[in-house]
Amino acid sequence: MKSLLFKHRSIRKFKSTPIPEEVLADILAAAVRASTCGNMQLYSLIVTRDAALREQLSPCHFNQPMVREAPCVVTICADIHRFTMWCEQREADPAYDNFAWFLNAATDALLAAQNLAIEAEMHGLGLCYLGTTIYTAGEICRVLDLPKGVVPLTTIVLGYPDESPELTDRLPLDAVVHYEKYADYTAAEIDELWAEREESELTKQLLKENGLPNLAQIFTQRRYVRKDNLAISASYLELLKEKGFFNQ
Amino acid sequence: MKSLLFKHRSIRKFKSTPIPEEVLADILAAAVRASTCGNMQLYSLIVTRDAALREQLSPCHFNQPMVREAPCVVTICADIHRFTMWCEQREADPAYDNFAWFLNAATDALLAAQNLAIEAEMHGLGLCYLGTTIYTAGEICRVLDLPKGVVPLTTIVLGYPDESPELTDRLPLDAVVHYEKYADYTAAEIDELWAEREESELTKQLLKENGLPNLAQIFTQRRYVRKDNLAISASYLELLKEKGFFNQ
Repeated sequence: MKSLLFKHRSIRKFKSTPIPEEVLADILAAAVRASTCGNMQLYSLIVTRDAALREQLSPCHFNQPMVREAPCVVTICADIHRFTMWCEQREADPAYDNFAWFLNAATDALLAAQNLAIEAEMHGLGLCYLGTTIYTAGEICRVLDLPKGVVPLTTIVLGYPDESPELTDRLPLDAVVHYEKYADYTAAEIDELWAEREESELTKQLLKENGLPNLAQIFTQRRYVRKDNLAISASYLELLKEKGFFNQ
Repeated sequence: MKSLLFKHRSIRKFKSTPIPEEVLADILAAAVRASTCGNMQLYSLIVTRDAALREQLSPCHFNQPMVREAPCVVTICADIHRFTMWCEQREADPAYDNFAWFLNAATDALLAAQNLAIEAEMHGLGLCYLGTTIYTAGEICRVLDLPKGVVPLTTIVLGYPDESPELTDRLPLDAVVHYEKYADYTAAEIDELWAEREESELTKQLLKENGLPNLAQIFTQRRYVRKDNLAISASYLELLKEKGFFNQ
């Protein structure tokens, strides 16, 4: 029998039922059991249940209704601030205010996030990751009072599901797994790996709705546009500098 | 009863028993069920079992014996290359060669990595994440033939455990969880959060071995030294430029 991991779907509609305290405590406790660099736990999990605060976070996530509707919004942050304070209080010279430690902290944070997500699903909860977090990270810092040394990476909205969507398709496993070394793709292989998705009814419907000749152009012209990608890159790098991850 | 997530320990000693093909296939299939940005699957998983290649990877991980001893080494990579190829073959203008998409790809990759780790443990395997991956990422690219648009983020060594270590301690849950907003720490709170660890027998032993007055200085003077942190930051940023994540 396949494990629970094979049943994950993003949930975007939630019941208003709150998450019991003991369930939330268990989920958070599972998060911190994930592997962490040198056992430094370079992350913070900001658990926002207050409706007024979720309302303030909502525009940061392009007003997707789930931020208001899910009973719990968890903002996953890289955090070198706490460990740095500890070091400074012990006359130790921390030196985590640089890009390597942004990477270490982001790794810690995202592994903990996925533990949180899986434990939540074990408790019958549903969730959705919000990629919008990096688009508006500076504003999220202001809403959540994130100090220097702390930046948001992603957000999980959490609650009891009020929908039961189909499993999303994936590329064939061969698309993402390489044995021994990276085997670069031929043009024909790329065509083959995407063939099933491109021929699907869903794709046909999307092409019709968008008036575009293929699925790739829906990504590049509608979903993730060059201008936005460059603006997000610039603003997130600026934030990393402001928050002290580039003090080299 | 607590879930399997509460039982995770890093495993550094492995039996030579190979991982059965169907088990490995299941683990990899679980990895791709993790949430992914726009269902783009912006990662590659390089599964290295060949002993000669693991031997070549070994110095990239400071010759830690587990790279040679574990039957399977999985290098987790952010990958915008495959999706970019697909777009280019469809006359779509990709624009993923920037920092925002490094972040999106890294998020995808690390969520998939943690699924892989958890599914592996469900099958009775043990694993350890190797933080050394970002220290020597350029050399790993050369050993594994990673093309432009692909960078390693972390590595998982995988196999049947030949040790049964104790659960590692963690900071109190309050240390990493904030309710509603980020509540900054007072100096007294920092002292309190680290008190148990600082007073432990393990810490006392480390201080004696290292001839240092406190645990924080073991981190800053022995484990993660300023000079190394800055060198790693510079080399990884250089690699991101070389691999086309800064074409703004």
